[in-house]
Amino acid sequence: MTERLIDIAALESALEVFAQERNWEQYHSPKNLAMALTGEVGELVEIFQWLTEDQSRTVADDPRTARAVRDELADVLLYLVRLSSSLGVDLNEAVVSKIAANAKKYPAGDSIPKRK
Amino acid sequence: MTERLIDIAALESALEVFAQERNWEQYHSPKNLAMALTGEVGELVEIFQWLTEDQSRTVADDPRTARAVRDELADVLLYLVRLSSSLGVDLNEAVVSKIAANAKKYPAGDSIPKRK
Amino acid sequence: MTERLIDIAALESALEVFAQERNWEQYHSPKNLAMALTGEVGELVEIFQWLTEDQSRTVADDPRTARAVRDELADVLLYLVRLSSSLGVDLNEAVVSKIAANAKKYPAGDSIPKRK
Amino acid sequence: MTERLIDIAALESALEVFAQERNWEQYHSPKNLAMALTGEVGELVEIFQWLTEDQSRTVADDPRTARAVRDELADVLLYLVRLSSSLGVDLNEAVVSKIAANAKKYPAGDSIPKRK
Repeated sequence: MTERLIDIAALESALEVFAQERNWEQYHSPKNLAMALTGEVGELVEIFQWLTEDQSRTVADDPRTARAVRDELADVLLYLVRLSSSLGVDLNEAVVSKIAANAKKYPAGDSIPKRK
Repeated sequence: MTERLIDIAALESALEVFAQERNWEQYHSPKNLAMALTGEVGELVEIFQWLTEDQSRTVADDPRTARAVRDELADVLLYLVRLSSSLGVDLNEAVVSKIAANAKKYPAGDSIPKRK
Repeated sequence: MTERLIDIAALESALEVFAQERNWEQYHSPKNLAMALTGEVGELVEIFQWLTEDQSRTVADDPRTARAVRDELADVLLYLVRLSSSLGVDLNEAVVSKIAANAKKYPAGDSIPKRK
Repeated sequence: MTERLIDIAALESALEVFAQERNWEQYHSPKNLAMALTGEVGELVEIFQWLTEDQSRTVADDPRTARAVRDELADVLLYLVRLSSSLGVDLNEAVVSKIAANAKKYPAGDSIPKRK
């Protein structure tokens, strides 16, 4: 049995109903959803592009940008979950399997040089 | 109290431990994680770029691409959750709030022309 | 001597002056410019995301979107040239060299199946 | 008459011939080319994602990454020019017009705070 790291079932259902009620399913091919995901990631990246790494760490503390950041993170997740659903992919299985592969590829304790 | 549409707490913890064990936290500024997210979305999009919309619908049925698609979807989610954690953002609150805003912006039942 | 496929020297100079006059050079690290490029590509992709391939072919004919498309294409090129300059890369050499590599990788006349 | 900042006519022709000889035109809808552009930008961004801004400035000096950077910059330009051609857009006109708009939007000499 696959370990459970995420539960997104309620969101999947909510997004499916949301699309049905608006007759949007005709537009929600995986190809189109992948493009929409790109657009939202672009908007998210724009928030960080001129910031230093240090400034980026506190961006959600700033009342001027906090809401924008949360909204863009949400938009990315909404399209990602919608894309995953449209493909019939079990995102929890995908994540569990990918982390296992990553753990093999990057063994813990390998010495990593301190960043300059 | 905010409705619960997703539960990603276990994944957030797993990714935090994973990064700590590899001394990766020094690299995981929100700015850098936003860039890493971009890279993964690019890999996901590459799977769909030459497909028709119809072909894109069945891409996860194909044993040659199913694993690739699941891996790329997982990679995007891993960096998105990591980015969200690094900013201290409650992704469930963000998603619930964004869906409410979308429902207001795009009222259900508005007539949407059938796609040509 | 490298073949000449593009001449962007005048644009490179114009962008350098433009940045100097606005004191923007401090922000124009290659890392930041790569992020800005991402953001602009995201805006470009948004124009096409819900269109069919056929609709996408005529998008610049439509007075409502023609200017938007041209502006987004320009924005992508501006950041690409600026990024290239900031790295001291000769974009013409890069393009000539990449096309030669592509010609080797994808020989002309290889039979390509007609798209379904 | 529009000022000339770039000349990409030879590249446009070369890419058109290259696509014709490989029967690729059937895949080169603007929608698909916009996605391919995204994928290439993702690969470019991956080079910079874990670097500091300072490290990013010298990335093309490093023999290990110089060729990779030049190749990714070229790939982005190739798809951008191909996309522009497929839409019948005059990229020089687009760039000249966008710079004029930017000059109006961001007047030179406006005091810009020194970056912290």
